[in-house]
Amino acid sequence: MARIAFIGLGNMGGPMAANLVKSGHEVLGFDLAASVLKAAEASGVRAASHASQAVKDAEVIITMLPQGRHVLTAWTDILQTAAQDTLVIDCSTIDVESSRKAHEMAKAASCLSLDAPVSGGTGGASAGTLTFMAGGSDEAFARAKPILEAMGKKIVHCGEAGAGQAAKICNNMILGISMVGVCEAFVLAEKLGLSHQALFDVASTSSGQCWAINTYCPVPGPVPTSPANNGYKPGFAAALMLKDLRLSQEAALASGASTPMGAEAAQLFALFEKQGNGGRDFSAIIEMFREKV
Amino acid sequence: MARIAFIGLGNMGGPMAANLVKSGHEVLGFDLAASVLKAAEASGVRAASHASQAVKDAEVIITMLPQGRHVLTAWTDILQTAAQDTLVIDCSTIDVESSRKAHEMAKAASCLSLDAPVSGGTGGASAGTLTFMAGGSDEAFARAKPILEAMGKKIVHCGEAGAGQAAKICNNMILGISMVGVCEAFVLAEKLGLSHQALFDVASTSSGQCWAINTYCPVPGPVPTSPANNGYKPGFAAALMLKDLRLSQEAALASGASTPMGAEAAQLFALFEKQGNGGRDFSAIIEMFREKV
Repeated sequence: MARIAFIGLGNMGGPMAANLVKSGHEVLGFDLAASVLKAAEASGVRAASHASQAVKDAEVIITMLPQGRHVLTAWTDILQTAAQDTLVIDCSTIDVESSRKAHEMAKAASCLSLDAPVSGGTGGASAGTLTFMAGGSDEAFARAKPILEAMGKKIVHCGEAGAGQAAKICNNMILGISMVGVCEAFVLAEKLGLSHQALFDVASTSSGQCWAINTYCPVPGPVPTSPANNGYKPGFAAALMLKDLRLSQEAALASGASTPMGAEAAQLFALFEKQGNGGRDFSAIIEMFREKV
Repeated sequence: MARIAFIGLGNMGGPMAANLVKSGHEVLGFDLAASVLKAAEASGVRAASHASQAVKDAEVIITMLPQGRHVLTAWTDILQTAAQDTLVIDCSTIDVESSRKAHEMAKAASCLSLDAPVSGGTGGASAGTLTFMAGGSDEAFARAKPILEAMGKKIVHCGEAGAGQAAKICNNMILGISMVGVCEAFVLAEKLGLSHQALFDVASTSSGQCWAINTYCPVPGPVPTSPANNGYKPGFAAALMLKDLRLSQEAALASGASTPMGAEAAQLFALFEKQGNGGRDFSAIIEMFREKV
């Protein structure tokens, strides 16, 4: 069992660290918010007074933070204290450029590094069923895998530094686009007098099939487990989908890729968030395409 | 076995009529193009000299024509000759408004009617494995079903008059949108140094999964049967996807539905067609997002 430092113990990091403790690892945690750190202690995480105290003598360091700038600040701090050959894993979803910068910093400090953003949300974090999309060397991946397995059920090595972030934003760009497409199609069907069930029956079994309709149907009825049946309680919050779509557009701009539908999806989720819907499930965007009554 | 009139014996109608003959039906066919009519004769269709000759004494009439105006013209002609209680089935993909008008005309002539557009392309038409999406009364559907089963393997009753057309354009709008989304994601992945296989492995097994990536992957390799492995030979031609997307946008305009992504997809396929790609498979639109080399 490893001695692991865990920086960022919020909605995702908290339950992930708790699962590491359950698997028998020794986890030293740090979070800027005292209340969050206290909550983590209840699940067996040992609280550190600052990040460098947490990472001292750690074999593995994990960060789970909101944005690229937080990760770069944290890694700058961490890498001053971390011993050579420490494995540093960033599980945050951040921009590809910052992720690659973080890898370079780790290399300069003679540490191994991995970007390993997750999908599966807070439910997956609690249940230990997250998917990890990892970018980094074979050696870093091999060392990280057994640690990540304590928190997830699917660990995919996507390629070199930044490839995990790239896979996540490309996947979520497809998801954001297809969800909006499915929502538009359901509203068009309503206007044309075609029932939700009829469109579901056709599309979910033919060329319109996609996760956004088959698994996460944005209207109540056809898929009983989808958030549409539960008042659009997330699930996957619209604000987080917007964050991922914006990351995809930053990456497209920086790399020179042309993504008109990705851009449109980002704009539509931005409108939806501005209307006060950031905390609702992202499939609730279907309501934006309907008349307000 | 029924006496069936079949009007419109082109790329789709020809093989469909041939399958009716194979099932033992008596098929009288008509097409404005003499060469097309002659080709149909080779498969056992009896050639009529005009539409009204074909429909005389027919128990079932099937039309398979390019656009709504062709269907309305043909049905005006047909319904003057058809006996009361004849079942008239339109298998064309046309606009919902024209389809509903055709149903009304049939009702006024005391005929039963069904709109039953198909998916599955010319391959499905030849193999007899089409999907039919049907709109009309229960009685019309019940009478049509055994006839349609000679040409397809899945027959879905979607609702009342026009519901078949509505289901088809809603489904194909989802397909057009998700295909563009998948293409944009692959090109973004290329720019970010993420391999096609890595993106496929992640997206096809998680929330990015959709028919456009899992079954019809627009890059060669991951799905060996997709047109990307065959120089983008259709498959489903870009011009036909554009037609369906335009029908969805006509329906959205006429019914007051808001479909920004559907509109964007229609515009992108229009650009792609203008560049001379109408006859290529619709998944070739990925090339429009890449630098020309």
